[in-house]
Amino acid sequence: MPQITPTNQTRVVRGAKRANYDRDTLHAIIDAALICHVAQILPGNRPLVTPTAHWREGNWLYWHGLSSARNVAATQAQPVSINICLLDGLVMARSAFHHSINYRSATLFGTPEPVTDPAEKTRQLEIFLDKVSPERWPQLRPINDSELKATGLVRMAIDEASAKMRNGPPVDDEADHDWPVWAGVIPVQSQWGSPEPDQYCTDKGLDHPRLPGSA
Amino acid sequence: MPQITPTNQTRVVRGAKRANYDRDTLHAIIDAALICHVAQILPGNRPLVTPTAHWREGNWLYWHGLSSARNVAATQAQPVSINICLLDGLVMARSAFHHSINYRSATLFGTPEPVTDPAEKTRQLEIFLDKVSPERWPQLRPINDSELKATGLVRMAIDEASAKMRNGPPVDDEADHDWPVWAGVIPVQSQWGSPEPDQYCTDKGLDHPRLPGSA
Repeated sequence: MPQITPTNQTRVVRGAKRANYDRDTLHAIIDAALICHVAQILPGNRPLVTPTAHWREGNWLYWHGLSSARNVAATQAQPVSINICLLDGLVMARSAFHHSINYRSATLFGTPEPVTDPAEKTRQLEIFLDKVSPERWPQLRPINDSELKATGLVRMAIDEASAKMRNGPPVDDEADHDWPVWAGVIPVQSQWGSPEPDQYCTDKGLDHPRLPGSA
Repeated sequence: MPQITPTNQTRVVRGAKRANYDRDTLHAIIDAALICHVAQILPGNRPLVTPTAHWREGNWLYWHGLSSARNVAATQAQPVSINICLLDGLVMARSAFHHSINYRSATLFGTPEPVTDPAEKTRQLEIFLDKVSPERWPQLRPINDSELKATGLVRMAIDEASAKMRNGPPVDDEADHDWPVWAGVIPVQSQWGSPEPDQYCTDKGLDHPRLPGSA
C-alpha cells in the first residue's frame, strides 16, 4: 500500500498541512539519513533517547549495536518511538514568530524484534554497509563468528509512521512584507570532506571508498 | 562545578573511555547543534521522540513551540531524555566490525519547567535568535503579545548529563593492517549554502543575515 493509515499516534495535529503518510516519502527520508533517534522507556518509567545508525530493507527499519546495548537488548518487544530528521535550511522571516526551519522528518512507532539468524544478520550488515559505501563489503576482511555474536541486530516494521516536512520561503504577515530586513532561506548542506587515509594505507595505491551522493 | 557527577542514568557503560562529564564539553556540543531530540512518555505508557530546535543559557537548556505542542505542553513536570548528536565522520575500517562513526553526542535527563513571564520569554527568544543569526533580533518587526502568548517555552537544568564522543582513525585488528582495502575517515561537513532571498527582498539592497561559523 502506498499510503500508511494514520493512527492516533501518527496523525499530525500541529501543522497538519505539512504531514505526509506516503510510503515512498517516508522511505526516502529514512534512506537519506544515517542517524535516527530511538526513544524507549527504561525500568522505573524513565524515557531514554539514543542516537544510532539505521538502514532499511523494504518495509523494515534496522539498527544494530553491541548485543548488550540498551537500545538493542532492551527494546525488543517493548514500544519505541523513532525519529529521523534532516535539516534543510533556516527560514528567516521579518518577525521572530515566523522564523522556521526547512526539514524532512519521519516519526515511527512500533515494537522492535531481534534478528538472530547468523546468515540473515550477515546479509543485513552488508545491506547497511552498502548504504554507507556501495560495494565495499566484498573488499573487507570477512566477518567472523565472534564478531557476529557480539553484534545485536533488531528490526521494526514501518507500519505506524508519519512524515512532516517544510520547504520554501518564509510566510510573513502581509503587513510585514515591506519591513526593511532580509528574509528568505539559508540552505544547510551536508557534504563529505576529503577522505583521510589512516597510517597503514601508505604507498598501497588504494582507492578511497565509494560514498552515497550526499552526507 | 566544571564536572557533572555521573548518575546511574548518565554513567556511560558501553565505550566508557569515550565518556565525558565536563560541563564545558557538554555545553560546546549543545551550542554547536541546532536540533535536539526530546523523548517523553505519553499517556498509555508509550514513548514519543520529537526533534526540536534548542538553545542554552548558562546551565539551562531551552526549547519552544506552539503552547499546545506535545513536546512543550506535555513535558512540564514530566521526566524527559534529550539527545544532541553531531555526526563528524565515517570511520572506514578493514573489517565490517570495526567500522564506526566519529561524533559528538550529549544525553541529558531532567524534568522541564515552563517559562511564562512575558519579559523573560522575550529575552530568551532573543537569545535563541542570536544563536542562529547574531544581531538579527533588533532588525525584526517586534514580537507582539498574541505571538508571545502562542509561543510555549520550557527549560531544563543541565544537571544530569553525559557526553560521548569518538574521533580519530579506525582501530583495526592488528592482523588486518595489511588487508588491501582503503581505511580511514570520511569527514562529514555541514555548511550554509547561498542565501535565497524571498520575493519581497527585491531591489531593497538588504544584506543577508549573519550566521554562526558552521551549520
